[in-house]
Amino acid sequence: MEKKKVESILVFGDATVGNPDLRYVVGASLARGGIYLKRKSHDPTLIVSNIDVGSARLGRVRSIRTYSDYGLERLSGRYDRDEARARFYERIIRDTGASGPIVLAGRNETSNSLLLIDSLRKKGIKVVGEKTPTILEVARETKETGEIEKLREMGKKTSKVVERTIRFLSKATPRGTKVTFKSKPLTVHTVKRVINGLLAEEGIIAPEDTIFAPGRKSSDPHYDGKAADTIRTGEPIVFDIFPSEPDGYWHDCTRTYAFSSPQKKVKEMYDAVLEAQTSALDMVREQVPCSEMMIRVCKLFEKKGYPTARLLAKGNKEARVRGFMHGLGHGVGLTIGERPYLSLYGKERLRKNSVVTIEPGLYDPKVGGVRIEDIVVVGSPSENLTHLPKELQI
Amino acid sequence: MEKKKVESILVFGDATVGNPDLRYVVGASLARGGIYLKRKSHDPTLIVSNIDVGSARLGRVRSIRTYSDYGLERLSGRYDRDEARARFYERIIRDTGASGPIVLAGRNETSNSLLLIDSLRKKGIKVVGEKTPTILEVARETKETGEIEKLREMGKKTSKVVERTIRFLSKATPRGTKVTFKSKPLTVHTVKRVINGLLAEEGIIAPEDTIFAPGRKSSDPHYDGKAADTIRTGEPIVFDIFPSEPDGYWHDCTRTYAFSSPQKKVKEMYDAVLEAQTSALDMVREQVPCSEMMIRVCKLFEKKGYPTARLLAKGNKEARVRGFMHGLGHGVGLTIGERPYLSLYGKERLRKNSVVTIEPGLYDPKVGGVRIEDIVVVGSPSENLTHLPKELQI
Repeated sequence: MEKKKVESILVFGDATVGNPDLRYVVGASLARGGIYLKRKSHDPTLIVSNIDVGSARLGRVRSIRTYSDYGLERLSGRYDRDEARARFYERIIRDTGASGPIVLAGRNETSNSLLLIDSLRKKGIKVVGEKTPTILEVARETKETGEIEKLREMGKKTSKVVERTIRFLSKATPRGTKVTFKSKPLTVHTVKRVINGLLAEEGIIAPEDTIFAPGRKSSDPHYDGKAADTIRTGEPIVFDIFPSEPDGYWHDCTRTYAFSSPQKKVKEMYDAVLEAQTSALDMVREQVPCSEMMIRVCKLFEKKGYPTARLLAKGNKEARVRGFMHGLGHGVGLTIGERPYLSLYGKERLRKNSVVTIEPGLYDPKVGGVRIEDIVVVGSPSENLTHLPKELQI
Repeated sequence: MEKKKVESILVFGDATVGNPDLRYVVGASLARGGIYLKRKSHDPTLIVSNIDVGSARLGRVRSIRTYSDYGLERLSGRYDRDEARARFYERIIRDTGASGPIVLAGRNETSNSLLLIDSLRKKGIKVVGEKTPTILEVARETKETGEIEKLREMGKKTSKVVERTIRFLSKATPRGTKVTFKSKPLTVHTVKRVINGLLAEEGIIAPEDTIFAPGRKSSDPHYDGKAADTIRTGEPIVFDIFPSEPDGYWHDCTRTYAFSSPQKKVKEMYDAVLEAQTSALDMVREQVPCSEMMIRVCKLFEKKGYPTARLLAKGNKEARVRGFMHGLGHGVGLTIGERPYLSLYGKERLRKNSVVTIEPGLYDPKVGGVRIEDIVVVGSPSENLTHLPKELQI
């Protein structure tokens, strides 16, 4: 808040699920959400529904009050919903003694939030917008000890799911170009069921599904593998898994596999990606500029003749579909994509206790994709949270 | 839009996951989100990243354009991120010829969205807030044929998961007050693993976990059952499951069970809840006022001596912890809680093709909870999407 000339921040929402900023400041799950208010140099207050007081106590805010304490019921009886809410928020803000610029944060419906903000402004409260990165984006960029512990746990669970999936895959039978399981062609449908069952056993979920993309279609980094896709020998399979605890922390890691002997081009791409990833992992430490990491990986790929996002930015259009066309990594925490971003344009430097993916990849529409991704905690030394071997062949 | 004196609506977000309004207007999943713009009496346009054009084509908008068409790259080279975005949005809005009041919708980070809105306002664009219900809340309140088909499918899958869970539970052994499975006390941990495995088999997920709450603690309607909780004979078990397709439609249903002979009070509560639910289900048709349904159920419970939310509103504090203290139901679609709300204060009437839960419950701290919940499509006749018997005893 210091830099921003902001005196107070209010984070709100009707649930912590789907609202990572609110989940972060509360430090626990609230089924019905709440209002978090912090004035500079003062302790924060959390205001919740009566029935969520118990949940709120599991979090990080000491001063917990209820909607009733600020007379929500009475206001709701007297005014329509939106006006009652505006008066309720006004009461809460005035009660803290906040008079300077205030930020309203949290993931919320835009047009109805604007109504609230316009209404507060009319009542004389100076609500201000925020440039990116917002106060909370910056706060969430470095993780506290308890958060790292949760991310570490997610790394273990996810690694276990991947290992056990590979154990399952190794029971399939490659013959000629085909791969069969129990005498039937092995499909993505079967593999994803296995993966989902293993996630369930670990008590974690994959709210945005899992990428298990075999063959040439994996040359689209976001192709997630359709149920009917069959698996063939020699072709690359991109297995990118990004599960989370319900309303909690995420993991994100990728391995690329091939049954039997990988095609020559696949092997070449794999070796280049592994070299790039190893080199990038070695670079992870505090104060390294994010863009420098990205540029280093691009140069390494370019030397080997692959187009990259860096060349694309200079006008080489080939890297739209071939080579290394996405970012090198991103932060992971209560979301699967947050600061810092290891891209060409990332102006920031890595900070201690940031948690980032390192995920170089190479793609070729005639071959498919290869990507290897780990999650690391930035430090001296850095700590890799993805405990998985890097072997192409199943 | 007619009623609201709004000329255009722009829905935006950086992913459709977690942004139901955007997911709704797009009619498909977009990994990197997009910008949907509709001017009154004109066809909508959807603007997405180059790599999401294929996904966008699976949706409902015919006119698809890319960020590049509006020069995002050039703007990003020339201005900082926020200013580039504001100019980009300005260009898109001006391009449609929209000049009157415009609504910016979608679930987004509040303070950074406010910066965008203030910036657009400075450029002369009249961005207005919306009272609840917003244009999109109203649109999403009644479902189209394709949406009902998806909700029907979710009903079938969820019912199958519950049935198979009950089949698993029936293999446990009640003896005295204890219930054992494979000679060990049956815990919520074991049951939830089974549920999660069954969800995985159906290809659906429970992003907000599942309520499997045994014993007295189930008297808190939101107690979800902790891993170490053991299951005992005679006590009520509230099993409330609310899964969804990834980035898609939800189901929500509840049954209450007891091993061996249910305690007398549990049986009494169960019979009252079943009677209330049957009566409420019978009332579901177009034009019925939502609050009338709630009031009818309250009166039925009150006659039998249970406190209710209606009495609570009149000052009877007992219903805070005992009796029927929550709403009778809510809409379900791309979220698990949306319009219409079957509460005391719901002013609207049921509309054809709304999809709502009917979930009366009774709670008693000395006994536990009983709740029965189905999902129905409002019509003549209404269609129940939850295909499960209502039997207390396992």
